[in-house]
Amino acid sequence: MAGQAADAEAHRRNAAILRILRSIGSAHSIRQLITLLARETRIVLNCQRASVFLYDPDEEELWSLVAEGESDEIRFPADTGVAGHVFETGQPLVIADVPSDPRFNPEIDARTGFTTRQLITAPIIGPGGEKVGVFQLVNRLEGDFDAGDLEFLEAIAGEAAVTIQNFQMLESRRRMFEGLVNALAESIESRDPLTAGHSYQVMLYSVEAARELGLDSGQIETIRYAALLHDYGKIGIPDSILKKDGALSDDERAIIRTHVEHTERILSRIEFERGLRDVPRFAVEHHERLDGSGYPRGLTGEDISLGGRIIAVADVFESLTSQRHYRSPMPLPEALAIIRKGAGELFDREVVKAFVRVLSRLGLAEEPEKKA
Amino acid sequence: MAGQAADAEAHRRNAAILRILRSIGSAHSIRQLITLLARETRIVLNCQRASVFLYDPDEEELWSLVAEGESDEIRFPADTGVAGHVFETGQPLVIADVPSDPRFNPEIDARTGFTTRQLITAPIIGPGGEKVGVFQLVNRLEGDFDAGDLEFLEAIAGEAAVTIQNFQMLESRRRMFEGLVNALAESIESRDPLTAGHSYQVMLYSVEAARELGLDSGQIETIRYAALLHDYGKIGIPDSILKKDGALSDDERAIIRTHVEHTERILSRIEFERGLRDVPRFAVEHHERLDGSGYPRGLTGEDISLGGRIIAVADVFESLTSQRHYRSPMPLPEALAIIRKGAGELFDREVVKAFVRVLSRLGLAEEPEKKA
Repeated sequence: MAGQAADAEAHRRNAAILRILRSIGSAHSIRQLITLLARETRIVLNCQRASVFLYDPDEEELWSLVAEGESDEIRFPADTGVAGHVFETGQPLVIADVPSDPRFNPEIDARTGFTTRQLITAPIIGPGGEKVGVFQLVNRLEGDFDAGDLEFLEAIAGEAAVTIQNFQMLESRRRMFEGLVNALAESIESRDPLTAGHSYQVMLYSVEAARELGLDSGQIETIRYAALLHDYGKIGIPDSILKKDGALSDDERAIIRTHVEHTERILSRIEFERGLRDVPRFAVEHHERLDGSGYPRGLTGEDISLGGRIIAVADVFESLTSQRHYRSPMPLPEALAIIRKGAGELFDREVVKAFVRVLSRLGLAEEPEKKA
Repeated sequence: MAGQAADAEAHRRNAAILRILRSIGSAHSIRQLITLLARETRIVLNCQRASVFLYDPDEEELWSLVAEGESDEIRFPADTGVAGHVFETGQPLVIADVPSDPRFNPEIDARTGFTTRQLITAPIIGPGGEKVGVFQLVNRLEGDFDAGDLEFLEAIAGEAAVTIQNFQMLESRRRMFEGLVNALAESIESRDPLTAGHSYQVMLYSVEAARELGLDSGQIETIRYAALLHDYGKIGIPDSILKKDGALSDDERAIIRTHVEHTERILSRIEFERGLRDVPRFAVEHHERLDGSGYPRGLTGEDISLGGRIIAVADVFESLTSQRHYRSPMPLPEALAIIRKGAGELFDREVVKAFVRVLSRLGLAEEPEKKA
């Protein structure tokens, strides 16, 4: 009977672990992952609060993205308190009477007004022994925490470690890519202080216009990177033309125009991840015009990607309103009038409308209603 | 009793699923992941072969990295055969008599000499409904496949989907980053055809020397990126100096030297992932020299990072042996003599030795034994 009862318990436990793993498997962000993990485990183990503390190796701190019931992030040195002890030793702990335990750090309770009576804490350790964080459950609603509860918590912590690590790796790889894109965008402009910030500003305008048009987050991301990189091909244009004082000759203008082909050649060799496949196309089409008068391909109407049509408007507006070697910045209303005049002929009508709404929201243009 | 037997079976099944998940959780590459998944599942379900087919959306094909027993990749259009059918419909299949089933594509058996008698196939579908691939088991060693086997396979396929997707995302993000680094490296040189390929060649030399020195894969990766990016700061140097014909003045040389500070400023703002944190340091220290005569900091000896010491040797050798605006390429033996002469004073002795071994292995230098 004891054997059967133990089997039945093991069965229930495995089924619960699988249910929890399935729910965390559907998480789209580390915040959602940890929220799910904490809630599901708290319900199975019937206690008052569940907290997941993750290790921040840069700060050597543990931090809690989600301590249920607390909306603020909790953060403390990775060698303090019960969580720190479990993190450092890699050994789990059951503490039946928290206030009398010397390892307990009462500061956080004092700050949050919560009363920790009893807790179990398990380390979250990756398959290669990497210390990821700790998982803590507080105050069982009925009875005391027992060895079975701890074993369950340890199993969940072990299973969740890989998923948490994956999210962390994906996120840090995204940040690294992001940093490199910014470096690239800035380096175009490092050659010419007059255009400093151009790509960044075009990106801000484009993203706002894309939001205004109701595009989804994947399209907005694609537009964001395309806008940051739209002028990258200028890296291949000689200083003597790029920084020329005064008007450009026809030949020089032709050379400047080749920057979109440089951009295309460079970006098309980058294997963008699936959701970002259109980055090169959007970037390359920012000089195309609705009536076919643009370059490099002279595309017309909707043959120009929506991303290209958005960046086109943002690029023209940003350029007109900034200092250039050959002219002073144009006042905003004048630049806006040029954009509006081109709507339907050069620029996408809906994009121009969205752009005007963005500018008026930013306080850079009058309300669109007041104008024609 | 039937209830108890079913419970016991469910228990065994959950325990096996958790065991398999744990083993795949420790995989470091998608190849290892799928090898483990196939082997563990084949053992539990006691059959002759397990194959995981993943979807390649670019080619609209299913491909098998690991069909146990086959060393070659198997690849076919995603709408053909039983695997294609299961992939398209998202519905699992048990086929007791394969040769008589019209959905079966006999081509692969014909090619590999394997005989498929019976099979079960489950779709691998992500939590958001994304079609990832299919999981197929072939020829039970005793008896026939039954509904319980299929249910088990479906559960494993479901649990594994997220892990496979994570690996795919990490890998595609890595490729994207890699592409961007290459674009950056090439764009430095796009301004000056004479230095085209310099960063790439320095990277090849550096990586080979690092391998020769027995560095681990993480250090080698860091050196690889640092070498590709070591001259990136040149993006901020005017054409008139960068491409000057003839010798540089002291002032011009001083301006050229600022490229390492530009590199530092640009790279230090990129949040490299943990394993790559030393990229900026290695890149910036490639002009430091053992005796303190280098720049920008005049570091000495082992205060210069090993990565910096390696890239220094590769950079000098590559530059000497290439065409420059102000001189012709130096013959290899002469360049090598300069490097050797500097060993211990300018360059790290061990690095120079490793470098000479690499060159001689590449057929670019005489055997190191034959020289002093």
